[in-house]
Amino acid sequence: MNEPYASKLLERAVQELCRLPGVGRKTALRFALYLLKQSTDTVAGFTESLSDLRTKVKHCRVCHNLSDTDVCHLCADPRRDRSVICVVENVHSVMCIEQTGQFHGLYHVLGGVISPMDGVGPADLTLDSLFARVETGEVKELILALNPTIEGDTTNFFISRRLAHSPVKLSVLARGVSVGDDLEYTDEVTLGRSLVARTPLK
Amino acid sequence: MNEPYASKLLERAVQELCRLPGVGRKTALRFALYLLKQSTDTVAGFTESLSDLRTKVKHCRVCHNLSDTDVCHLCADPRRDRSVICVVENVHSVMCIEQTGQFHGLYHVLGGVISPMDGVGPADLTLDSLFARVETGEVKELILALNPTIEGDTTNFFISRRLAHSPVKLSVLARGVSVGDDLEYTDEVTLGRSLVARTPLK
Repeated sequence: MNEPYASKLLERAVQELCRLPGVGRKTALRFALYLLKQSTDTVAGFTESLSDLRTKVKHCRVCHNLSDTDVCHLCADPRRDRSVICVVENVHSVMCIEQTGQFHGLYHVLGGVISPMDGVGPADLTLDSLFARVETGEVKELILALNPTIEGDTTNFFISRRLAHSPVKLSVLARGVSVGDDLEYTDEVTLGRSLVARTPLK
Repeated sequence: MNEPYASKLLERAVQELCRLPGVGRKTALRFALYLLKQSTDTVAGFTESLSDLRTKVKHCRVCHNLSDTDVCHLCADPRRDRSVICVVENVHSVMCIEQTGQFHGLYHVLGGVISPMDGVGPADLTLDSLFARVETGEVKELILALNPTIEGDTTNFFISRRLAHSPVKLSVLARGVSVGDDLEYTDEVTLGRSLVARTPLK
């Protein structure tokens, strides 16, 4: 389906929908024809919600998580443990960790990881704001929960170097075998690390 | 991921994106977070293209295909054979048939098929406009290219009854084994029909 469609408006809508991650021209065309069949009001509500999302959403001024208010509901919650901060790459990671129900501290969203290949340096992230939070002395531990990639490890290393003389404790997520996974299908690096970092049973 | 997100704006955008066919909450969240990362201009262009599609696109007044102009580029093309009309359910079928490169006549988009279960009767389709085109006498053949469903067959039957005394020729798409398919995986109705309607080789 690569030739232009009968309508330039359709062509343009399909091109725009192709921007969405994992959406090719066939799926984009399905989306566009679906929207064409809906009422004008439905489509207006649909597009309005997306532009509102982009233009009106705020970032929490403490942890940089998405928020409708100046300080997000997690930072504002008095029941959360203010002595532990979980450092994550993006807002999606916050949602994933909240889903586990295992963490009751605060977050800090870096907005990415250090990646010289993509031109992302420490100054492009919210690292200064993180170090400022650590310097208040309220924080006892930082859990570095970045994605287990080279860039994530680089960022972990940068943070640990910068906080080498700080009394704050640093930890990273445990690397190991996935729960319910088969050893046969676990890659050798992960399996090797899970052996080195084995957990005492007794 | 069923609990509300940190932001009501995000929640609403995700709900709206879930309308798209085949998109669940996880995919909708991916789309929303992707759009959040784009520039305001990009998102404005994105949403504008979709509302323009819904509000500005026209339907050809001859064949009811999508068009930016009053008469679509297919109906306006002097090289196309005006004596054959291919009757299809929707604009997507027009694109699929144009893709084959095997048809050089005109189209007629019904806008659906007769389906009493969904409350769609003959009056909801562009049938009157089709019969009016047939009555001009310019048309020699109608190819009924509706989807091979009960509703498609009902609509074929309705058209053939209505044109019983008209000199126009009627045909339907051949039903048979798909090219490149395996007989083992062809359903018995299709295989049965392909035997009854076998094509002479010599």
